[in-house]
Amino acid sequence: MARKAAIIGGGVIGGGWAARFLLNGWNVNVFDPDPQAERKIGEVLANARASLPALSDVPLPAEGKITFCGTITEAVEGADYIQESVSERLELKHRVFAQIQQASHGVPIGSSTSGFKPSELQENAADPSVILVAHPFNPVYLLPLAEVVPSAKSDPKVIERAKEILREIGMFPLHVRKEIDAHIADRFLEAVWREALWLVKDGVATTEEIDEAIRMGFGLRWGQMGLFETYRVAGGEAGMKHFMAQFGPALKWPWTKLMDVPEFNDELVDLIAGQSDAQSGKYTIRELERIRDQNLIGFLRALKDRDWGAGKVLKEHDKMLAAKLPAPPKAEPMAMAQMQVLPGWIDYNGHMTESRYLFASSETCDNFLRLIGADMDYVKGGHSYYTAESHIMHLGEAKLGDRLTGSVQVLSADEKRLHILIRIQRGDEVVASVEQILLHVDMKAGKTCPAAPAVLSRLMPIAEAHKSLARPDSVGRHVGQRK
Amino acid sequence: MARKAAIIGGGVIGGGWAARFLLNGWNVNVFDPDPQAERKIGEVLANARASLPALSDVPLPAEGKITFCGTITEAVEGADYIQESVSERLELKHRVFAQIQQASHGVPIGSSTSGFKPSELQENAADPSVILVAHPFNPVYLLPLAEVVPSAKSDPKVIERAKEILREIGMFPLHVRKEIDAHIADRFLEAVWREALWLVKDGVATTEEIDEAIRMGFGLRWGQMGLFETYRVAGGEAGMKHFMAQFGPALKWPWTKLMDVPEFNDELVDLIAGQSDAQSGKYTIRELERIRDQNLIGFLRALKDRDWGAGKVLKEHDKMLAAKLPAPPKAEPMAMAQMQVLPGWIDYNGHMTESRYLFASSETCDNFLRLIGADMDYVKGGHSYYTAESHIMHLGEAKLGDRLTGSVQVLSADEKRLHILIRIQRGDEVVASVEQILLHVDMKAGKTCPAAPAVLSRLMPIAEAHKSLARPDSVGRHVGQRK
Repeated sequence: MARKAAIIGGGVIGGGWAARFLLNGWNVNVFDPDPQAERKIGEVLANARASLPALSDVPLPAEGKITFCGTITEAVEGADYIQESVSERLELKHRVFAQIQQASHGVPIGSSTSGFKPSELQENAADPSVILVAHPFNPVYLLPLAEVVPSAKSDPKVIERAKEILREIGMFPLHVRKEIDAHIADRFLEAVWREALWLVKDGVATTEEIDEAIRMGFGLRWGQMGLFETYRVAGGEAGMKHFMAQFGPALKWPWTKLMDVPEFNDELVDLIAGQSDAQSGKYTIRELERIRDQNLIGFLRALKDRDWGAGKVLKEHDKMLAAKLPAPPKAEPMAMAQMQVLPGWIDYNGHMTESRYLFASSETCDNFLRLIGADMDYVKGGHSYYTAESHIMHLGEAKLGDRLTGSVQVLSADEKRLHILIRIQRGDEVVASVEQILLHVDMKAGKTCPAAPAVLSRLMPIAEAHKSLARPDSVGRHVGQRK
Repeated sequence: MARKAAIIGGGVIGGGWAARFLLNGWNVNVFDPDPQAERKIGEVLANARASLPALSDVPLPAEGKITFCGTITEAVEGADYIQESVSERLELKHRVFAQIQQASHGVPIGSSTSGFKPSELQENAADPSVILVAHPFNPVYLLPLAEVVPSAKSDPKVIERAKEILREIGMFPLHVRKEIDAHIADRFLEAVWREALWLVKDGVATTEEIDEAIRMGFGLRWGQMGLFETYRVAGGEAGMKHFMAQFGPALKWPWTKLMDVPEFNDELVDLIAGQSDAQSGKYTIRELERIRDQNLIGFLRALKDRDWGAGKVLKEHDKMLAAKLPAPPKAEPMAMAQMQVLPGWIDYNGHMTESRYLFASSETCDNFLRLIGADMDYVKGGHSYYTAESHIMHLGEAKLGDRLTGSVQVLSADEKRLHILIRIQRGDEVVASVEQILLHVDMKAGKTCPAAPAVLSRLMPIAEAHKSLARPDSVGRHVGQRK
């Protein structure tokens, strides 16, 4: 039977928790006196449904059932886990815990608090041993971190149970061993926030400039390695001690408004270098560099696909490079595109990934269409060629760095139809052939129609000239056909 | 003719600059008195060659030529741009600039300094107007950010020329309008570093725990939006003002050791809210949420592919889910992938670009192969399924933002052959179908061979269950076949 979570306090954080539990098959009871709570949580849930499943390569369990409850007592009835996400007011949290503990016994009660320590949350509680900090990060349904902070009064078994539940809903419970204001992550966020407020107030930078300074540089690093591992790599062969010797003196410089620093002595250097060895010593610096670089490529490619942030910079750079490329040479069949197999085109087999063959073919075909005048302006005018059907023969394996040529042979053409064979070649070797039917369409009407005379006047002579070319065996073949 | 950059000071940073220029077709002269410089730069260059080209979808120009020079005079001879990356000692930098300016006139001289202001660098220089800060981030060959900081003595034309050159080598020059110790980004890094040293010293957290607190949570956010845009979204419908009202009071709390804060008044709130509107106001909060979520999915999937950081958490979660899955296959096409049509997937027709249909199909097929045990470890063991042939029917038009599902129907399977039909659907509508033959191969021998028993034991029951499914019309069809 599905287990049940009680979410006390909706909003962006409570809604995120509800979504994580629901999408992982838990039933969820929500209590929030805000009359807008159901709508607000519904919106978070819609976002989560549209994103969380994309992270999983295994079908998620059937979504749980969400119930909006009129009282805390009703909400915590039968719950296996309770998460509190009400406003950051200690007396309010105390009242909520008191109500929860009138109806629930022995069940872990996690608090989403950013700032309060568990011992503060537990004050005057009927059963302090089950109250803990489980501090998530927005968006809760995507980011794995949950800081789990116990106090001396916490029951270690309850803490372990809570951590296990968090893992089950896909989170990473970080056990914070020593309670402290704002736990760990928010101490950094707060330090950065304070420094950022100074920079804006003093007119040094705008919010946008500050955001660019983060997301174009160290922000990309921190999504995959943290502060210390990044610096370990930056220290190069000489490692963490070298890095610290180099940057230790900066602690005495006015590099931030926030000047309180611990004494920078051998003891601190040894402590950090030792912990860093324990953390990352299983990899050499060279290995860490390669891991970091591959991670960064992954991030940057993801942003490029989405034309966002650093990905926009990459797209602009591509445009600059493309503007300098020589015009595509012509031949018979007509060589329409020159390409190189880039690292991002390689699959886990070490070969050019399947869809890149069609990508190479598309590039070739697009150049051919441009040549006959079916270019961007033509498309803006409401007409285009759409591919109706393709047949790909994989005849060889392109590898990293291979230079490929894409050529077009026109098999037949009329006013509306264009039947072509594209060959992707490495030197003389055809690594793939793609047979395609393209239809000329009126895009607005969504129907085929004759191509413009200017296009036909360029296409038809080519089709005529290609009639004399031999028809390769792959043409007219269906998948799996015996030779 | 290729242009020339002079790199003064090798090491990790100077080597990164050299690599960026070389791979973008510039010739590079290096001066570094370290006898190990050539080897060290060679290693950075090897890393860059293995990663930077993966970011570009357009062939990079032919790599430039690198020359190691015995003197600064020789190195800067004929250079169009000069970058200084020597140790952070001001008198050393002054000596280097003096030597450079004996041999070079009017050429921009960027300094990689983290801490010195341009006015400090320019002191006593023969020509202060061409000396500027161009502060990069490690790895220089991948991260786009370069903080460009002029002083009052800088020549605005030289600054613009330097920014243009940085753009040409794929960087994002962030013009820092007001010089300040440590520019912008390093002020944040320094604040976090100081706080982290406190946490380690006080025994609150180890270096590893701190790194996890960063990379499992806010680090992922900061690679795609910065501090302010992230908080704007977190503020929800009520926006930036609401967020600040909520978190303003925390400035009075002991959330970090670093306590210096500006006065939190209406003026500051209005300043920040106004700048945030100018920065992000063109998107609604809902749009920003979706952009953020899609970016995070991209990052998390990239890490999952690499089994690293938050990606490891996702893999563990998949294992937990898989352990709970019911085993027996059903007689229905298996939904194997969920995708969304991203801006980078769109062609000039405004539709999903042709090769992305095969990409979607590949993703679907890869997940299916993983499901039957032909996963990364299997490939590492020397076996894999290769696609031999594909037939694509374009049946509809996917548009920006469409959510697509990829499903697999096994048409037939034996020890060596796998014949499948993949449907790419938007809701119930099939926008494309892809019929494929995959062959199981011994990758080393380059020949087909029977799949491993563990794979067949999962594949064959699915094939058996799918026998009862109807065979769609598109199967066995050749291109252009009449219906």
